[in-house]
Amino acid sequence: MNPYGKDFHRTRRPGKPSRPGGRQTTSATGSDRDGPAILYGWHTVTAALANPQRRIRSITATENAIRRLAEEKLALPVEPLLVKPDAIAARLPADAVHQGLLAEADPLPSPAIEDLKPVGIVLVLDQITDPHNVGAIFRSAAAFAVKAIVTTARHSPEATGVLAKSASGALEHVPLVTVTNLARGLAALKEIGFRVIGLDSAGSVALEAAGLAAPLALVLGAEGKGLRQLTRETCDAAARLVLPGAITSLNVSNAAALALYIATARSPAPT
Amino acid sequence: MNPYGKDFHRTRRPGKPSRPGGRQTTSATGSDRDGPAILYGWHTVTAALANPQRRIRSITATENAIRRLAEEKLALPVEPLLVKPDAIAARLPADAVHQGLLAEADPLPSPAIEDLKPVGIVLVLDQITDPHNVGAIFRSAAAFAVKAIVTTARHSPEATGVLAKSASGALEHVPLVTVTNLARGLAALKEIGFRVIGLDSAGSVALEAAGLAAPLALVLGAEGKGLRQLTRETCDAAARLVLPGAITSLNVSNAAALALYIATARSPAPT
Repeated sequence: MNPYGKDFHRTRRPGKPSRPGGRQTTSATGSDRDGPAILYGWHTVTAALANPQRRIRSITATENAIRRLAEEKLALPVEPLLVKPDAIAARLPADAVHQGLLAEADPLPSPAIEDLKPVGIVLVLDQITDPHNVGAIFRSAAAFAVKAIVTTARHSPEATGVLAKSASGALEHVPLVTVTNLARGLAALKEIGFRVIGLDSAGSVALEAAGLAAPLALVLGAEGKGLRQLTRETCDAAARLVLPGAITSLNVSNAAALALYIATARSPAPT
Repeated sequence: MNPYGKDFHRTRRPGKPSRPGGRQTTSATGSDRDGPAILYGWHTVTAALANPQRRIRSITATENAIRRLAEEKLALPVEPLLVKPDAIAARLPADAVHQGLLAEADPLPSPAIEDLKPVGIVLVLDQITDPHNVGAIFRSAAAFAVKAIVTTARHSPEATGVLAKSASGALEHVPLVTVTNLARGLAALKEIGFRVIGLDSAGSVALEAAGLAAPLALVLGAEGKGLRQLTRETCDAAARLVLPGAITSLNVSNAAALALYIATARSPAPT
């Protein structure tokens, strides 16, 4: 439950101790979680600045980044703190590409699953833990106009740090719904009217033939483990990606992008 | 030119100094590169063990991994060195999931671009540097029966370490062709008979409508920078992925998976 995501234990900044269960009890608003969302990199920070729902607590920027923000006439809600690039790098994982810009912000509000409307596509992530993958999935979700991403409060990375960077601004466009129990979450989606399809390499039908009419929930499992048994049993159908080559599974974010393309091509345009 | 890929500078193993230009002068055989390929993780190592072209120099394994290798009746070309899990972790980047198994092996032979046959699909990577992304692209390439991946010798990660792990065994299935000059490489592909299509968010046509008959070369650029100008000019066509959402670009490995799906669905099955 490290608020900075799993890659953050490489940071030189002292970690704040986690508060067990803290996320679950506050997932409705996200306003009292363990700490701020750490956003870095040009796309990630400027997307947050452009999002009226995102409350920015602080901005730390290099001289170059401050000049670029001014050139692009971006309104800043707080005075940026001018620092050298190394001072930003020191707060981030090694190799982090921060482009001279870091912001601390409140986590975004997290809608309740019951409040989702029966339209379009939602993605459900069953204990996918790698923040690079979850971030890339957010980015693809925003690219395909996905209505929400649903994850479990536990066994999922926080929407901060590496995840936010990999999402490249997509956190500002796709609401994150966290649930305590995924099977109950899927039941709630079915009640709203979503058809729930699990991606499973042992699925009985090809995804293209799985009846992809929106409203549609696509469920993705962790690499290696796949969908948990109860998750699979709760789905309306288990479908597979048809892969003609020597390897028959994809990186989970690649699988998500492919599934979204297939589902978008076969279901009415999201509204 | 760190032989262990860019993530390896976190290892506690002393790095070997790189030899400038070493890769380029030996890319035809790959047998005299800077060092061995480091392969770790169950899928990555067992795929290498199953590949008659891969010469394994050493195997380091935990007690559990040795038992599992025996249970699955995998023939080992060399006696494994029994170690504790920490001894493997100490040689790898933080967070590396090694599953108790690490091998050192010769890099695989790298075919010359002129030796590619005019069939199926090849992927061309224009200075994509992130080893996680390139590894995931290898995995998708193997899943879609891609005939080869073409990269530049410089500005590309080596086929080792994090890249090999992300490829999840795919290095054993998809030949890696390295070229010194990408525009000349593309010209060679055209001469063989490949239609060369660059993926470009400013492309004039949707990829689906770009004339996807095999033999086909799909060219992907680095995130942020995209295709270099000379690369783009050398392509037969520049095509875009049609993304209906608020974000209009994907993680490069996600874009590769999507492009391969689209191209595979629209060109004759690779033979």
